[in-house]
Amino acid sequence: MISSRALDEAMRHALSLAAHGPTTGGNPQVGCVLLDESGVMVAEGWHRGAGTPHAETDALSRVADAAGLTAVVTLEPCNHTGRTGPCAQALIDAGVRRVVFALSDPGQDSAGGADRLRAAGVEVIAGVLEAEASEFLTPWLVAAARRRPWVTAKWASTLDGRIAAADGTSRWITGTAARQHVHEQRAGNDAIMVGTGTVLADDPALTARGDAGELLERQPLPVVLGEREVPADARLRQHPLGFIQFATRDLASALDDLWRRDVGRVYVEGGPTLISAAISAGLVDEYHIYLSPMLLGGPRHAVGDLGITTMTDALRLHLRDFRRLGDDIVVMARTVPGPTHPSLDRGDDVAHGIAPERH
Amino acid sequence: MISSRALDEAMRHALSLAAHGPTTGGNPQVGCVLLDESGVMVAEGWHRGAGTPHAETDALSRVADAAGLTAVVTLEPCNHTGRTGPCAQALIDAGVRRVVFALSDPGQDSAGGADRLRAAGVEVIAGVLEAEASEFLTPWLVAAARRRPWVTAKWASTLDGRIAAADGTSRWITGTAARQHVHEQRAGNDAIMVGTGTVLADDPALTARGDAGELLERQPLPVVLGEREVPADARLRQHPLGFIQFATRDLASALDDLWRRDVGRVYVEGGPTLISAAISAGLVDEYHIYLSPMLLGGPRHAVGDLGITTMTDALRLHLRDFRRLGDDIVVMARTVPGPTHPSLDRGDDVAHGIAPERH
Repeated sequence: MISSRALDEAMRHALSLAAHGPTTGGNPQVGCVLLDESGVMVAEGWHRGAGTPHAETDALSRVADAAGLTAVVTLEPCNHTGRTGPCAQALIDAGVRRVVFALSDPGQDSAGGADRLRAAGVEVIAGVLEAEASEFLTPWLVAAARRRPWVTAKWASTLDGRIAAADGTSRWITGTAARQHVHEQRAGNDAIMVGTGTVLADDPALTARGDAGELLERQPLPVVLGEREVPADARLRQHPLGFIQFATRDLASALDDLWRRDVGRVYVEGGPTLISAAISAGLVDEYHIYLSPMLLGGPRHAVGDLGITTMTDALRLHLRDFRRLGDDIVVMARTVPGPTHPSLDRGDDVAHGIAPERH
Repeated sequence: MISSRALDEAMRHALSLAAHGPTTGGNPQVGCVLLDESGVMVAEGWHRGAGTPHAETDALSRVADAAGLTAVVTLEPCNHTGRTGPCAQALIDAGVRRVVFALSDPGQDSAGGADRLRAAGVEVIAGVLEAEASEFLTPWLVAAARRRPWVTAKWASTLDGRIAAADGTSRWITGTAARQHVHEQRAGNDAIMVGTGTVLADDPALTARGDAGELLERQPLPVVLGEREVPADARLRQHPLGFIQFATRDLASALDDLWRRDVGRVYVEGGPTLISAAISAGLVDEYHIYLSPMLLGGPRHAVGDLGITTMTDALRLHLRDFRRLGDDIVVMARTVPGPTHPSLDRGDDVAHGIAPERH
């Protein structure tokens, strides 16, 4: 018999293991812990991305004999044969006695693992730390439910909401810490999207780079939206992954197309035309707004018209986190409700830290 | 002999005492501690505002015999006979043996206290915790040096810098915690200024109120800038202090006039025309920007044109503090450099708490 508290602790550890996996590649981040009957952890595993073993098989591979063990997994073991076999069957074959998971698998093809386990006589306990796991996997869960990528809109503005001076100059509104944070976010997304206006105005490289300018291991796929041609000498053409252009202003159809290419997360960097269109269309799930302690005034706004005419129609966001990056502040918010980070529920005025990092 | 560390501790305590005094009324906030020769604190005092005893005489009044004591004061004892006599002479008369202060008195009429003390044989130690005291008194010091009030510009906007929807509706962008914070700020200023446009559009009461709607003890003087007439039925006309109108757009001359009326701090609440003009004219010292987790888009910007055409001319602010107020965030920044709150110098990403509150 393993106590409920020991299961909670094991699940919390499994969630921390899950966070080691990539947010990119279409698969969920999953962690797994194997416990003996006294509740002692004997192995752990996590999913390292599409095409690699799932968390359960990763953990099983680390014990000589799993017979009689309890598997604690953040997501219901899959019942699906893809590039790897169904995890539910692997757990049955290994002789696991009990499977504990947090979240049911929402996948149309992969669900049913719990039923298969029960049918094989394995004890199944569902819903342990379900809220934490749901919060952790929100982008993946929302994308899976909507069958389109999770979209993060990012911009950097002055405190008065400007992204450039009247003459178009904009380097640099934010400092190096904020810019480095942006590179990390790029690496945590499958694709990075800009409008043709931004390509023509700023000639961005759209790579994820480290603080010495080196390319990071994970690179998002550059995606350009709009009909104007990307110049032959654009830096974008040097991107290690190449780039995709959708010669349309129809963001929804572009996202559908990207979803079919296993793009689960899209990071929209601008410009203001694309950002405003994405917001108006209700296609933004998360906002990362970098605020520089600076005022500019003038005509170059981060967000243009949204078609909102009266206060009651304002787009209300759910504040998740805000913190200082160098001299700048980053504010992170989502359109979907959901448990905010515990720091934001505290009685005090200050947010501390941030939810588990996923890359 | 009192150790340097004990003097620092006494000065830190004197600074915390000073913070009990009002930020309004034209006089600086000053605290004083009396120590015996072993460094033990035997009395404390602070200045409670114009017309009341200075910190030194307040502390002296709390001991039967001050002979041989050390007075630790945040500001150089004054040498000026106003509504009260010169503190330097009071300390001499009381037989104080040593006077320690943080900041020299910048006042044209009141300086010279240290010289008078030395001439009377009192030991004088200047500059203890000078940086902390200077940071604490920055608004008063800057106002005294420029001979115009310290000006705080406040606005509440969405994350995209809008203060109202296209149809002009704006209630409520921020929540109750942010609005209550604004009332506290009003109470900490001598005057609250709005343009006639705001009076006509919003009909503000311009009172400082508590969370039950009751009037706070300290009320700022309402000041209206602009030529249009305040309507006969304007709520402003019910203000317990009445109001002043400057029928001009010349903010600098209005501030000069207010300074001559002993207005040391002005809180400018808008609208955007007045705020933008004040920023453009270089007349804003501090910014309190309340950001609501909301997006609006559209034409109603917190800040309009500032006459800045290129990035290198951007108005760079010094971030002092930011924190959560309910669902909103307040960002506080200044145009003058100066030591930021220690939390902002920490290696981590998060600001904690805020500098000593002054009201």
